Amino acid sequence: MSVTAAAGFRAAGVAAGLKSAGPDVALVVNDGPLSSAAAVFTTNRVKAAPVLWSQQAVADGVARAVLLNSGGANACTGPDGFADVHASVEHAAQLLSVGAADVLVCSTGLIGERLPMDRLLPGLDSAVAALSGKGGADAADAIRTTDTVAKTATVTHPDGWSVGAMAKGAGMLAPSLATMLCVLTTDAVAEASSLDAALRAAVRTTFDRLDADGCMSTNDTVALLCSGASGIAAPDEALAEAVRAVCADLAAQLLADAEGATKEVEIVVSSAASEDDAVEVGRSIARNNLLKCALFGNDPNWGRVLAAIGTTTAAFEPDELDVAINRVQVCRGGAAGDSRDGVDLSGRRVLIEVELHAGEATATVHTNDLSHDYVEENSAYSS
Amino acid sequence: MSVTAAAGFRAAGVAAGLKSAGPDVALVVNDGPLSSAAAVFTTNRVKAAPVLWSQQAVADGVARAVLLNSGGANACTGPDGFADVHASVEHAAQLLSVGAADVLVCSTGLIGERLPMDRLLPGLDSAVAALSGKGGADAADAIRTTDTVAKTATVTHPDGWSVGAMAKGAGMLAPSLATMLCVLTTDAVAEASSLDAALRAAVRTTFDRLDADGCMSTNDTVALLCSGASGIAAPDEALAEAVRAVCADLAAQLLADAEGATKEVEIVVSSAASEDDAVEVGRSIARNNLLKCALFGNDPNWGRVLAAIGTTTAAFEPDELDVAINRVQVCRGGAAGDSRDGVDLSGRRVLIEVELHAGEATATVHTNDLSHDYVEENSAYSS
Repeated sequence: MSVTAAAGFRAAGVAAGLKSAGPDVALVVNDGPLSSAAAVFTTNRVKAAPVLWSQQAVADGVARAVLLNSGGANACTGPDGFADVHASVEHAAQLLSVGAADVLVCSTGLIGERLPMDRLLPGLDSAVAALSGKGGADAADAIRTTDTVAKTATVTHPDGWSVGAMAKGAGMLAPSLATMLCVLTTDAVAEASSLDAALRAAVRTTFDRLDADGCMSTNDTVALLCSGASGIAAPDEALAEAVRAVCADLAAQLLADAEGATKEVEIVVSSAASEDDAVEVGRSIARNNLLKCALFGNDPNWGRVLAAIGTTTAAFEPDELDVAINRVQVCRGGAAGDSRDGVDLSGRRVLIEVELHAGEATATVHTNDLSHDYVEENSAYSS
Repeated sequence: MSVTAAAGFRAAGVAAGLKSAGPDVALVVNDGPLSSAAAVFTTNRVKAAPVLWSQQAVADGVARAVLLNSGGANACTGPDGFADVHASVEHAAQLLSVGAADVLVCSTGLIGERLPMDRLLPGLDSAVAALSGKGGADAADAIRTTDTVAKTATVTHPDGWSVGAMAKGAGMLAPSLATMLCVLTTDAVAEASSLDAALRAAVRTTFDRLDADGCMSTNDTVALLCSGASGIAAPDEALAEAVRAVCADLAAQLLADAEGATKEVEIVVSSAASEDDAVEVGRSIARNNLLKCALFGNDPNWGRVLAAIGTTTAAFEPDELDVAINRVQVCRGGAAGDSRDGVDLSGRRVLIEVELHAGEATATVHTNDLSHDYVEENSAYSS
């Protein structure tokens, strides 16, 4: 049901010719009565034009629509690229009879090339004409790039309100955020400050702990729009939990669809001195190309796990480290433990458990293996 | 000529059966009259047993021999692994009639497995028997793992002294150091403090600026031994330059032989606010898997260069960034510059030039592309 699972929203996805085939322009419109909103963006200092725009547009906690496109990131396009965003927003705002400053924009695709405005603007006309309370699936489909499937999620609260969402992302998945565009909608009654708190908390432990390839995008955007159409006020805690559940669901879908991956790797770091330490260790393991290649080759090479841990600033003693791979404790006290021959890596899921023996904190980071297909997809992407 | 290019040194390389085939034990002996020495080691906090030993052994600025082996890293082997180092050193010291604390040890190979001492100790007997003033090439050959060629370098100073060296390394090449073992020798007359200063300065701008795959080893060691056999005192500056030249030569050889690489990529970051900024930016680009895949595919994807720069803390403004790839300025002022179609990436060498427009500092970082063969070699390494 995607973004139209929540009442008060219409959406559409249409083909404007930005990509060689398939839908590439999506629109999500909030018909209210509320128009509160929140969003988080990439922390990359090189931000795409739509990010620069949307950061400003959402700063007042109000948004009425989100315009999205695949087929071009509109990043590193200079003042001309920003003018293109502005023209798109003005056009959409006029069609929807809303203020331009209440329209957010998300783009994804190749960096460094202008969008073909002669196709995008007519595409907006088509998208507005196609808007429907059942258009969520079409919108989710239109924002795909190398995604093999559209990603959507929904949570319905027993009190009678819902959160719906769609996301795209299959590569350049690293904090913060994992490269992706994501729009969440809710028909709960909530203020922008509650939305903001819920969204930031959810992103911190879901999308921000995906690290497929260590590469941070220029375009990442996660937006949450609130229509209040259910008429039911959501307590902050319930809203936060629903938003978190939707984000966790989508993050798992992103991981499952990561470019060229044959493994989904869950790295659980325990007994850390702090959550930051646990995340740092998990991320260092997640980014170790040699380990990721080993996992692709079904090789439980725990030495590479220790070598990765050793590059961090986390509190630990090398001779106290324990590592288990798929429940076999291959490393005990910093040296060989049970036989690596007992580790079954034939399946798609890999669980790496690390004990730092330095405290009480825990964190989980998700990544993939490094495969021939990853190299293939990313060597041929722009050509 | 390797390590025996300098007078006063003997070396050997023999097959002890640590690997399934080929030589795997090397020995370098300093016959003096001097025995001053210096060494730098991996900054990984998970250090192999031979590193833990050698750090202590060289702390007094004296070394008489270096024992090296391929076929096993003796890392993450706990107290037993350290006892193995100690047994090797005692055995070698007795055979050579030197103090055990004057013998350095370097190991390379798979992490997490004990060395077969029943093969290594007899191998030391063979190595001592084979020691020769012409044994440098054999020693260089014996320390290879996935290296396709042995790496050696020599500088002869007009004043009549020399620096010789051998190195191994083909993967896990990242600071600090690039994964490698390297032994340098000199017959100049020099004190340990001069050797130490020369070696640290050389490593900082050569091996430490290689970043093939972002992975830091547990075993990296670069040792410099001084026999003084030429009888000629080397001024500090001349010694430093000779050591730097040898390290630069070996670093280039390591890069050329990096596992599975099809490109040698030189990243020159200029007009940075500081050298640290320039190195941070260069390293971030060198570690970007998406860019490295693009280069493998001959795709001058400068957007990925900017996305990598954007993740750093260096001083720059996104709309002032300039990037040239193989002399074509594909990005000007943070946006598209000259056509990417003009970039010729058909050759093995790739030059990426970045201007930050934030100051006067410059640094160069070297890396490789990310290829199918890299994935292949590293997915099958331990199996």
